[in-house]
Amino acid sequence: MKTFAIIGTGAIGGYCAVKLQQAGFDVHCLIGRDYLHVKKHGLTLIEGEKSYTLPIQAYHNISDMPVCDVVLIALKTTANALFIPVLSNIVNDNTTVVVLQNGIGMEQEIANYIPSTQIVGGSCMLKVDKHAPGVITHSHFNNIEFAQYYSNYHESGLTPIIEQLVADFTSAGFNVTATEHLPTLRWKKLIANIPVNGLSVVLDAATIELVEDPTCFNLLCALTKEVVTTAIKCGAKITDDFYNARLKVLESFKSLPKSYSSMKHDFDAKQTLELDAIYKNAIHIASLYTVSMPLTTMLYQQLSYLNNKNISRRH
Amino acid sequence: MKTFAIIGTGAIGGYCAVKLQQAGFDVHCLIGRDYLHVKKHGLTLIEGEKSYTLPIQAYHNISDMPVCDVVLIALKTTANALFIPVLSNIVNDNTTVVVLQNGIGMEQEIANYIPSTQIVGGSCMLKVDKHAPGVITHSHFNNIEFAQYYSNYHESGLTPIIEQLVADFTSAGFNVTATEHLPTLRWKKLIANIPVNGLSVVLDAATIELVEDPTCFNLLCALTKEVVTTAIKCGAKITDDFYNARLKVLESFKSLPKSYSSMKHDFDAKQTLELDAIYKNAIHIASLYTVSMPLTTMLYQQLSYLNNKNISRRH
Repeated sequence: MKTFAIIGTGAIGGYCAVKLQQAGFDVHCLIGRDYLHVKKHGLTLIEGEKSYTLPIQAYHNISDMPVCDVVLIALKTTANALFIPVLSNIVNDNTTVVVLQNGIGMEQEIANYIPSTQIVGGSCMLKVDKHAPGVITHSHFNNIEFAQYYSNYHESGLTPIIEQLVADFTSAGFNVTATEHLPTLRWKKLIANIPVNGLSVVLDAATIELVEDPTCFNLLCALTKEVVTTAIKCGAKITDDFYNARLKVLESFKSLPKSYSSMKHDFDAKQTLELDAIYKNAIHIASLYTVSMPLTTMLYQQLSYLNNKNISRRH
Repeated sequence: MKTFAIIGTGAIGGYCAVKLQQAGFDVHCLIGRDYLHVKKHGLTLIEGEKSYTLPIQAYHNISDMPVCDVVLIALKTTANALFIPVLSNIVNDNTTVVVLQNGIGMEQEIANYIPSTQIVGGSCMLKVDKHAPGVITHSHFNNIEFAQYYSNYHESGLTPIIEQLVADFTSAGFNVTATEHLPTLRWKKLIANIPVNGLSVVLDAATIELVEDPTCFNLLCALTKEVVTTAIKCGAKITDDFYNARLKVLESFKSLPKSYSSMKHDFDAKQTLELDAIYKNAIHIASLYTVSMPLTTMLYQQLSYLNNKNISRRH
């Protein structure tokens, strides 16, 4: 039976774990805080009126886990420095490592330990929340996108391991897209993440507050424009039209209920923010193409100050 | 006897009122909240161990004030729209109007009502605080700088009314500088005000916190650089060296006791921030020289959002 390791069983990781196990795969979950609870009670997934509870093969240390066919990385990127060096414990020559994280540059880091040909980048578009230990609510969307990593983010096309992931996740009920070019996938997500995540923290604001204030909406547009322009210059296969499409999404936020970005949730929980993956790496990659990102850099500097102050106040 | 009208008797206005009255001038003060208190008890100035209390000719309405030889405007710029149109009540053909406010573009607004030749821009470098109604503490510095306003901020040189102001304020104990070019005076103050005032509000930070965090210090430098570059392109008579001199000042803040910018004080008191004079007008004037200020614009947009939210929470 095909084996999956889920590294980081939060909302996204836990959702994938339940769906894949329901589809008949052999799933092994690395779990932090909730380890004892999930080991005893399993994972519960609530979808609308329905609720499923599954027993889970739970682990607290990566060194206790078996080598798996697919390793799904769904931890916050702030934990990468700790776990990437020990990833090889559960990886052999046939393992596919899927990086389901926000940001850019994570695959390059992993490629220091695992061959590029075994690394895939992934991006989810689905609304899940963890409301209690081991309890995940899935409310909207069910989309996941994969692209093969290739050294230095060159184009790789659709490889057999991508095709296999598409088959596996489709059988688990996801709407799966295979993308030929990982940098495009990463930059598209950054275009969404960089403006809203950062401003929600700096301005202590809900998403709807950011889009309803006209001046702040202009700033969101300026940041979005900067990231779109940078993405194109860095080789992402999108056109200027992507900017207009994104503005429509921002406009649509005006009619959503009040909610906060994931980075704002992390900040309020005094978690270290994912600034390296989402901001620092993007700015660095842009600089390799001699593109500067003045507004994104300013946002990053502000977030860096606030993050330092925030975590120094943890206790 | 030469008459002075002080429009706005806060810390700066009140300090000038006491010093000018002590020097023998006939001083008339427009006072807001503290009117009844100052009318009854006068103004008290504390300087080190010494304390002076002077009776004051206090007014609550500009229409009750006499025409004066010099009108000193020391209100927040946020009040300009209200009082500028009624200024002519206390101004005749021989009155000098001195604009002692932070920002840029205020003189142009006043020139819609008063001839340019009667308008002077001023800038203080002195540390005064109002700790209680009518009580002002003067702790550091005693510098004031004047420059003649000339239509559209062209150079005017040292006019007789500037020389008269230098004589008057020198007799009142100030260290006075006469400057030939008002835009230079205004931009120099903006170079100090734009980065620190804005970031202190957006990052909810004391000045020392801004300069001690290395990333935040870099952002202060980037903002300072942008304003210096803009100032030079807009004709301010400073050189790139001014940037290095300003960096030394920012460095020196690391050894000062914890304190907050005036804009942060206004924000915490839920006062409307002086965003038009300090940010919007600077960005607009730069645009007339086809200079863009991306970082300053972003800071202005953030401040605008926070200011709107802040004043909507007043009661």
